[in-house]
Amino acid sequence: MNKQQLIEQIQKKKSFLCVGLDTDINKIPQDLLAMEDPVFEFNKQIINKTAEFAVAYKPNTAFYEVYGAKGWQSLERTIQYIKVNYPEVFIIADAKRGDIGNTSANYAKAFFNTLQADALTVAPYMGKDSVEPFLGFEDKWVILLALTSNAGSKDFQYLNTGERLLYQQVLQTATTWASPEKMMFVVGATHPEKLGEIRKMLPDYFFLVPGVGAQGGDLKTVAQFGLSKECGLLVNSSRGIIYASNKFDFADKAAEEAHKLQQQMEDVLKAKGII
Amino acid sequence: MNKQQLIEQIQKKKSFLCVGLDTDINKIPQDLLAMEDPVFEFNKQIINKTAEFAVAYKPNTAFYEVYGAKGWQSLERTIQYIKVNYPEVFIIADAKRGDIGNTSANYAKAFFNTLQADALTVAPYMGKDSVEPFLGFEDKWVILLALTSNAGSKDFQYLNTGERLLYQQVLQTATTWASPEKMMFVVGATHPEKLGEIRKMLPDYFFLVPGVGAQGGDLKTVAQFGLSKECGLLVNSSRGIIYASNKFDFADKAAEEAHKLQQQMEDVLKAKGII
Repeated sequence: MNKQQLIEQIQKKKSFLCVGLDTDINKIPQDLLAMEDPVFEFNKQIINKTAEFAVAYKPNTAFYEVYGAKGWQSLERTIQYIKVNYPEVFIIADAKRGDIGNTSANYAKAFFNTLQADALTVAPYMGKDSVEPFLGFEDKWVILLALTSNAGSKDFQYLNTGERLLYQQVLQTATTWASPEKMMFVVGATHPEKLGEIRKMLPDYFFLVPGVGAQGGDLKTVAQFGLSKECGLLVNSSRGIIYASNKFDFADKAAEEAHKLQQQMEDVLKAKGII
Repeated sequence: MNKQQLIEQIQKKKSFLCVGLDTDINKIPQDLLAMEDPVFEFNKQIINKTAEFAVAYKPNTAFYEVYGAKGWQSLERTIQYIKVNYPEVFIIADAKRGDIGNTSANYAKAFFNTLQADALTVAPYMGKDSVEPFLGFEDKWVILLALTSNAGSKDFQYLNTGERLLYQQVLQTATTWASPEKMMFVVGATHPEKLGEIRKMLPDYFFLVPGVGAQGGDLKTVAQFGLSKECGLLVNSSRGIIYASNKFDFADKAAEEAHKLQQQMEDVLKAKGII
């Protein structure tokens, strides 16, 4: 999916919501466990009920790898299901990969060709040649970690590297590697004032913003600081949506939560004149 | 496996060789492709012939993920095969994971419980709470990226953060998170003088040293700068060993290359009085 198509989806659905599929077998309704692939079954029902409110889904690979090859099968089925039934949706594999060039080239094939995700989260520590192999795929995206939502973001990302803090230097350097048509950045919702500063620095890039909901970030504040003139945000919520209920009504409750966020998003998009 | 057991294996095999299982279906002998699981078959034969010279194997997850769930099955089979047939060997999942705590906890279960690796490579960018979930498993190890072997290591790892360069700060901070009984560091063979500096800074930690062979690092130089009084090194070679031949004799040729490295390692271990 290219940037223009993503923006069209945002305008059409009046939403910049990304639903995080951090599907944990211990948190899903227990009746699903009798099914052959409970993780996929859960995802399928969540997707069916939330797709009208969401422009993106973000399966988090850790929650699939924990079940080994079987978990990867659930991940493959989930992405395939979205592609067949909701081809307009942007699929982010949240995998935080990154390695020497030869290895990153294989991760790129794994996520863009084999799994057919539209985007992959990538860690910046190993530098340019660890990120470049992900950039050679048409209409596929790198979402590079810049300022993450967790407490540990303070350990290294805020180090002063002379002219800039480390996360600012990562942003500055990475924008020389790829345009806003190929790269987005992870900027945590837990640093709203920083989000504003980064938006000023990078008016044209999309940001994937985790941390709304369970991690404490607030949507309106994120929108206030983070929106660009064409939206420029994908705001993720995982636990707050998919675990809204752990009973038979889980998918309906997830839809309710997704709808609430979509309505708030519609309000801010209208207020900004984006729709 | 604990540190003492690892050191005993090094002394017994007179080797600190780690064989990297970066198994690429395009580079293995073509007759294997007719088998049900060519990647596992290749690994099995490589392992059988090289295990007497190697203290560790390091499957690189990218080369398995590229085949999706089927690739994860090859990875599971490979690790299981090593555990059953060569239980003395240290198994490193080279996966470079790292995410917010809740997610890292699932990666830890994926690699230490489901896959049963002894160690996992972890990226430091997200800080303490992204690394800590990997530290709570008995006799399991975090191998944290510090100074990597690729050209891109210069982009961020060498940034001056005030008192120290970023990779030095990562080392300094991470040693407050875990002892040399739980954590090792990745230090690339392509920076030998830095390896010496890091060894002085951290006399008791093990270093995993990639980059010998295909990436240009030299074993004797690595040993000269990197050995500690109890060895403290695992030197990895992947392509130089496993692709020594792409014909029917691939496993024998791999054994020859592994044996050559083992002999050089024996020499330097003797010269240092470690064996």
